[in-house]
Amino acid sequence: MYKTKKLRKLNANMKQFIHLNIKPTNQSTPQPRSIFLGFFLSFSRKLDMAPLTRIGLAGLAVMGQNLALNIAEKGFPISVYNRTTLKVDETVERAKQEGDLPLYGFHDPESFVKSIQKPRVIIILVKAGAPVDQTIKTLSVYMEKGDCIIDGGNEWYENTERREKALAELGLLYLGMGVSGGEDGARHGPSLMPGGSFEAYKHIEDILLKVAAQVPDSGPCVTYIGKGGSGNFVKMVHNGIEYGDMQLIAEAYDVLKSVGKLTNEELCQVFSEWNKGELLSFLIEITADIFGVKDDKGEGYLVDKVLDKTGMKGTGKWTVQQAAELSVAAPTIASSLDGRFLSGLKEERVEAAKVFKSSGIRDMLADQVVDKEKLIHDGWNLKLGQLTRIWKGGCIIRAVFLDRIKKAYDRNPNLPNLLVDPEFAKEIIERQSAWRRVVSIAINSGISTPGMSSSLAYFDTYRRSKLPANLVQAQRDYFGAHTYERIDIDGSFHTEWFKIARQSKI
Amino acid sequence: MYKTKKLRKLNANMKQFIHLNIKPTNQSTPQPRSIFLGFFLSFSRKLDMAPLTRIGLAGLAVMGQNLALNIAEKGFPISVYNRTTLKVDETVERAKQEGDLPLYGFHDPESFVKSIQKPRVIIILVKAGAPVDQTIKTLSVYMEKGDCIIDGGNEWYENTERREKALAELGLLYLGMGVSGGEDGARHGPSLMPGGSFEAYKHIEDILLKVAAQVPDSGPCVTYIGKGGSGNFVKMVHNGIEYGDMQLIAEAYDVLKSVGKLTNEELCQVFSEWNKGELLSFLIEITADIFGVKDDKGEGYLVDKVLDKTGMKGTGKWTVQQAAELSVAAPTIASSLDGRFLSGLKEERVEAAKVFKSSGIRDMLADQVVDKEKLIHDGWNLKLGQLTRIWKGGCIIRAVFLDRIKKAYDRNPNLPNLLVDPEFAKEIIERQSAWRRVVSIAINSGISTPGMSSSLAYFDTYRRSKLPANLVQAQRDYFGAHTYERIDIDGSFHTEWFKIARQSKI
Repeated sequence: MYKTKKLRKLNANMKQFIHLNIKPTNQSTPQPRSIFLGFFLSFSRKLDMAPLTRIGLAGLAVMGQNLALNIAEKGFPISVYNRTTLKVDETVERAKQEGDLPLYGFHDPESFVKSIQKPRVIIILVKAGAPVDQTIKTLSVYMEKGDCIIDGGNEWYENTERREKALAELGLLYLGMGVSGGEDGARHGPSLMPGGSFEAYKHIEDILLKVAAQVPDSGPCVTYIGKGGSGNFVKMVHNGIEYGDMQLIAEAYDVLKSVGKLTNEELCQVFSEWNKGELLSFLIEITADIFGVKDDKGEGYLVDKVLDKTGMKGTGKWTVQQAAELSVAAPTIASSLDGRFLSGLKEERVEAAKVFKSSGIRDMLADQVVDKEKLIHDGWNLKLGQLTRIWKGGCIIRAVFLDRIKKAYDRNPNLPNLLVDPEFAKEIIERQSAWRRVVSIAINSGISTPGMSSSLAYFDTYRRSKLPANLVQAQRDYFGAHTYERIDIDGSFHTEWFKIARQSKI
Repeated sequence: MYKTKKLRKLNANMKQFIHLNIKPTNQSTPQPRSIFLGFFLSFSRKLDMAPLTRIGLAGLAVMGQNLALNIAEKGFPISVYNRTTLKVDETVERAKQEGDLPLYGFHDPESFVKSIQKPRVIIILVKAGAPVDQTIKTLSVYMEKGDCIIDGGNEWYENTERREKALAELGLLYLGMGVSGGEDGARHGPSLMPGGSFEAYKHIEDILLKVAAQVPDSGPCVTYIGKGGSGNFVKMVHNGIEYGDMQLIAEAYDVLKSVGKLTNEELCQVFSEWNKGELLSFLIEITADIFGVKDDKGEGYLVDKVLDKTGMKGTGKWTVQQAAELSVAAPTIASSLDGRFLSGLKEERVEAAKVFKSSGIRDMLADQVVDKEKLIHDGWNLKLGQLTRIWKGGCIIRAVFLDRIKKAYDRNPNLPNLLVDPEFAKEIIERQSAWRRVVSIAINSGISTPGMSSSLAYFDTYRRSKLPANLVQAQRDYFGAHTYERIDIDGSFHTEWFKIARQSKI
């Protein structure tokens, strides 16, 4: 039955090929179909036949495997390759287990490349940087003019632009495509952010539209982002937002647990509740899930056994560096990056805690009498204000909330900041008291909420027409003759502050 | 008298040369001495004489002029050059006005370079980036093996390393030297941070030791920083600290003015008081000065007329980017950079203030009844905690406080963080309540204190042995199979959170 269903999805010109390949094979042979295909290909090539796959994917770590299986499941026969061939066999086996999907493994780059129909399209999913260059080098020697390489990793956007130029000289097309959604997203529907050659995008648009996550009313989660490294850039910002989101959730957890004394069961309930309302989102959902998982190696809940050290892979760092480069204040993301850095200093923190504990400064400064329900409600309230903060960019993190951001920009495409959209402004006003309350409670309890407080400071800075920046500019003019502008007269001014101040003292 | 005094300072082999040059010249001729010198040089070269200057300086904007005059005043005859020759004449005139200093101007690069004794040392003080490359190109053609170029600008350290390598191939030495202290410092004693060729440093050590600021007990403010771009790197961090310091002062000003309703006279008094105690520092001093300067173009004080837009030149941005690169949390500096970015959005902020004002959110949220004296005292108290935060690097900003940092590192050169130095820890503990009080008051008043609150969050993060980072790591393992460590068992773990959470719900 399943096979029949699959077959209906296939292109007519692929039929004979697939028929051959979905024949029952010997289970004990590790990669029966790829061996079969290899044989078939060499045979068919001799006969000048072209039973080729539609697309190729190189790099079969978690993301690569799952994306390849996803593509195969959507009816596009796919060739796969990995330098460590064990991964090839593993993927072929999974394709078989997960529904006899049209996925074909290759142990050498040449037969891999040559198994794909022209113009060939190959997605590579290897570590960013040198491994991408190496993979391109390995594959491109067998590729021909008009063929295309798509880097699906979290690559620095300038590397993509460099490669696009270099490959253009060989007549090859290039795309840098952000892929978001983790393991599960890659397998069942990721958000895709392709940028670079529009021609290359057009070659595979039909595949991407089917492979991407399908959202009712919004359609497939893919669009051609733009030229050059724009796909990577948008993915980078997406990951920065993800850092910020996770930091805010962690702070909410800390306040609720440390100040509100909520148990894991209660935390699970609170986050599950939150996930029913306007906070409905992947990260809130998985957070609720996490609080419900018991430790299988001991007593209690697993979350309490997880070491408080957060890893990272660089995109959050890049976002912070790029924000600085572009003169954009992104304090929530910067706080989340610092949060990860400081989490990494576990040994130092343990020592610091001892130093302060011996002087009476405990982890929690004071047990405050708090209204649990109010604290939870306050927490719920302030999320929106924080989420609205900097997320002006091409945001694709799964959350119901994103719809409202989209609507704000539909109302006014030139909105300078979400904070001044009438609807967002109204809500912020309603909720800012709760926000201030939570941050104040945290500060007085000694619970650090760098994301919440820096977001609040952003709001209080942005909404004020006059800042103390006049003093800073006066200082700069004082010691560096940097000049200043005046509020009342046009032009650039310099004052001999030192001389005047000294004179007036005499 | 003055001339006699000068003469005693000079090297014996320079005597004849200087005698010639300090002869009275015709006042109405714009650059009598340089014309004279040019004539003399061409004449002396023919006779194979060598009445050359000790050092050269190219780039005569504010910093260059003042540093050249400083060097000349310390008794080192100096040649100066600038592409726009008007600046040369201006500097020569100043040298004359400021005590007939041994400074000689040149209008073309060749005679400039050839007027300096070998091995020639030329300090360049032009804009960072391409202008430095251009100046090196212009001068180096006339330079010879063993000669040395010193870039005294705020250059990106990697550019210095690139240039050092390129010039080494021509047999030239190179130093990247941070110069701090502004206009006044350059003229009367800057802090100097030379890095690069040690051989080059040795050529001019005698000059730098005299030209640098002289601090009783601490000696001249100069030391050989290290190889490559280290001098520029340390200067960059210095400037980042300067950004942080200025931001914190601006926030204190805002709280005292907006919440405490202090007048400019009172602010002047408060900062003057602060400058008598442990906050004694250049920036506190000039801040007090600034509050005392009346507007010469209208009523009231000048500081109130200065537009609240802060400029910047890049070193603060680089510090934030480098901190991220090196996994160092530097939230105070990051906040100060964001503060400058947001100050630049003046027009947007004015619009935002209107949006919120129309809904009843005024600039100040609520007039709080505060004890002025207590607020001032609290403000005074919290400074130390903030200053101690991230200033682990080679900090050279003028402040009495720096002595205490130095002492902490003398006590323990391997101190992981100033916060855990016993003396600093003690003070932080005594003062943290006041710090929390000020930040809470500011938050509830709607006055943004991003520097103060992010510094406090840093403290509260660093001093806690357990952070909510376990949740973040659990989330990463949930959606990305990134694995996690446990607090009780060694190793790397992965959990099928989704599966388990769903199972337990059934």
